[in-house]
Amino acid sequence: MLHSDSINDNICAISTPPGFGGIAVVRVSGPDAIQIVNTIFSKEISKAKGYSLHYGKIIKNNHDIDQVVVSIFKSPKSFTGEDVVEISCHGSTYIQQEILLLLIENGARIAKPGEFSQKAFINGKMDLTQTEAIADLIHAKSKSAHDIALNQMKGGFANELSILRTKLIELASLVELELDFSEEDVEFADRDQLQSLIETIIQNLEKLKQSFNYGNAIKNGVPVVILGRPNAGKSTLLNNLIDDDRALVSDIPGTTRDTIEESSIINGIEFKFIDTAGIRETKDKVEKMGVERTLSMVERASILVYVYDASTTALEEVEQDLLAFQKVAIPKLIIANKIDLVNNVKFKQHLNISATNKEDIEKVKSKVLDLFSSLAENHEGVILTNARHLEAIQLSIADLSKVRDGLNNKSSGEFIAMDIRQSLHHIGTITGEISSDELLGNIFANFCIGK
Amino acid sequence: MLHSDSINDNICAISTPPGFGGIAVVRVSGPDAIQIVNTIFSKEISKAKGYSLHYGKIIKNNHDIDQVVVSIFKSPKSFTGEDVVEISCHGSTYIQQEILLLLIENGARIAKPGEFSQKAFINGKMDLTQTEAIADLIHAKSKSAHDIALNQMKGGFANELSILRTKLIELASLVELELDFSEEDVEFADRDQLQSLIETIIQNLEKLKQSFNYGNAIKNGVPVVILGRPNAGKSTLLNNLIDDDRALVSDIPGTTRDTIEESSIINGIEFKFIDTAGIRETKDKVEKMGVERTLSMVERASILVYVYDASTTALEEVEQDLLAFQKVAIPKLIIANKIDLVNNVKFKQHLNISATNKEDIEKVKSKVLDLFSSLAENHEGVILTNARHLEAIQLSIADLSKVRDGLNNKSSGEFIAMDIRQSLHHIGTITGEISSDELLGNIFANFCIGK
Repeated sequence: MLHSDSINDNICAISTPPGFGGIAVVRVSGPDAIQIVNTIFSKEISKAKGYSLHYGKIIKNNHDIDQVVVSIFKSPKSFTGEDVVEISCHGSTYIQQEILLLLIENGARIAKPGEFSQKAFINGKMDLTQTEAIADLIHAKSKSAHDIALNQMKGGFANELSILRTKLIELASLVELELDFSEEDVEFADRDQLQSLIETIIQNLEKLKQSFNYGNAIKNGVPVVILGRPNAGKSTLLNNLIDDDRALVSDIPGTTRDTIEESSIINGIEFKFIDTAGIRETKDKVEKMGVERTLSMVERASILVYVYDASTTALEEVEQDLLAFQKVAIPKLIIANKIDLVNNVKFKQHLNISATNKEDIEKVKSKVLDLFSSLAENHEGVILTNARHLEAIQLSIADLSKVRDGLNNKSSGEFIAMDIRQSLHHIGTITGEISSDELLGNIFANFCIGK
Repeated sequence: MLHSDSINDNICAISTPPGFGGIAVVRVSGPDAIQIVNTIFSKEISKAKGYSLHYGKIIKNNHDIDQVVVSIFKSPKSFTGEDVVEISCHGSTYIQQEILLLLIENGARIAKPGEFSQKAFINGKMDLTQTEAIADLIHAKSKSAHDIALNQMKGGFANELSILRTKLIELASLVELELDFSEEDVEFADRDQLQSLIETIIQNLEKLKQSFNYGNAIKNGVPVVILGRPNAGKSTLLNNLIDDDRALVSDIPGTTRDTIEESSIINGIEFKFIDTAGIRETKDKVEKMGVERTLSMVERASILVYVYDASTTALEEVEQDLLAFQKVAIPKLIIANKIDLVNNVKFKQHLNISATNKEDIEKVKSKVLDLFSSLAENHEGVILTNARHLEAIQLSIADLSKVRDGLNNKSSGEFIAMDIRQSLHHIGTITGEISSDELLGNIFANFCIGK
């Protein structure tokens, strides 16, 4: 939670990951940051310049704690916009704790999670989308997730929203101009112009909204559902898809005991392969009982992979299975497995592989990547990855739908203006131009300490 | 292992603890460190001054990897004595790996464990005892262990050894002077003076040698053996001694299944309380079968705590038990437990407690600390904590014993001089004035990467 008096607090935290290491960094930010560190440091740094380094000792009661290097950043040229001191000490947990205690004794207090970023926001160094991107950046596991977070941190999303805001303000001013003169019963604003403007804005917001599934998939891993009858070779396929990227393989317990998720990074993109044992077992009665469940599973995926055993399955059976997923509008990859046991060419329309063959696995990866690229084509520019942003955009679209209806029904300018202002408000909450203590508290509580 | 050509290598490593965090630091050291970072950094830093900070971006193929702060340290004013660059990036494992890969692409190689410290040693920034102290410092869990390591890192031990070396060289020169003129049959060196000098040196070395048990106890925890008959209340005592310091409690599996060790930090000193179930169970037959085993257990301890149940045990029984440990020359604390169940004062000579009483537990802690202080009194000044140093000092003492014998037997100066040189050699291996690739390889292999 943010309190107005906390803005002038001096905060401190260990900013490096917890544990032992060569180096650890303790960060202090606040109006007295330099003075506080000066008190416990062996050298005079109270007049030190910004962007300077100082080698010396941290001292407690005339007793050395460590030999350290101190970095000075002066307001406003620092991460938080305040004076910031970073103490680079030996990576001993004992030393880190001792330095923190000394800082507290001398007037700093322990930072709450994300409080450095929060100060950066409050001091206008970053908007909310940029600070939120820091948390995403730190936890990004793949190149694509990293790239989206970095673009957002650099203000890419904020710029897009700023353009939208400008358009909305233009819309509002047109309507409110009319409002000012409403007693004179003059209609200044060209309603056609308003209509066209609002359509553009809604389209832009819809585009952002639609990018969320894609953005979320990149951030948390692109969900790929693997389906198939028993013995189709799904497990072999899954294991071999994973095997090459051992470093990032993990068993993520699914929402049900029957779901297995395994992550693998292919070409810088994290894919989550989802194997649903439950579906597998009820597959042969799928039309009778499993369709609903299977569909709901598939609908949450970005890509569907259907595998069958080419040596035992008739093409008619395959087509029957696929019928169930006909209406699901996600890219599909149909794989004819165990092709090494088959002589004819009846499965030519599907990807023919042997799941135990390394080259064939590469073909599957390549196809999955192609399908992902086809998804990506719809999402040029800024991509939504944050559920908070999605919610605000959905609310904003709802407001603007009312505005559109109002214009169609020739409602009074007063109501239309109110809905536009409401829409602006929701957009404003994304970047933090409009914010509340509660909102900020919720956002920064998810950060790691020291950032 | 150290290779002569590796001295000019440019090495890089993640120096902060592994994992996610606000900040991570990637360190580069070597003659081309600044040039290598300059290639991947958005700003020109090739002419940057030492002890300067630079904010910018790490770039890979015109693509941003992260916004970072770069610290420049110029040879010789750096940790390794070479040019050193520290890249302070966001604490994402992906970013850390990408930066490492970029550095490698541009001519650096991954540092071996402790290789930064090894370079500091090779470039004369520190002697071996100082670099070894860094590893101890990083892993120090208590104030006392931290203080010893820090003193050693600051060169305390090296100074002590330097004084010893000076004396040894004085001794050698006196003997060798005699040697030079031996054909003239002149005895220049006053043998009494030699004798007195060598006694002083051996005494100093013996003092260091004897400090090892104490130093090792501080470094790894002071071993306190708790003994007592069944139902004396040892477990209650152990648990309550530990309880107050939950943060550092841990179960360390002992050498045998029967031994339980629990650590607790009291007044900045780590104590390891050792409870030997085996001894406990055979306690009543201790004279028949358990004495040897118990004694060997106790001999490895620094302090012995014997507990008995004052409500059920006769003073004669206590005295009988204690007889077995009479000859063990470590401080002992005798505790009469369950004193709340007793009315008379027959146990006045022992510490009367109820192990469930918080105040009484404080009394026990205070007594244990007193006993530890009595140990400390024998060890003013430098304290040995490293088994490698102990070995070298033992070898040096052995050489000097030969010198002493040689002087007593009026051996030829030639032999005496050889033994003195051998002794000097062993002292020299401690600080690294004399070193080999193999020795250095062994020492630095135990370091963490990035230091």
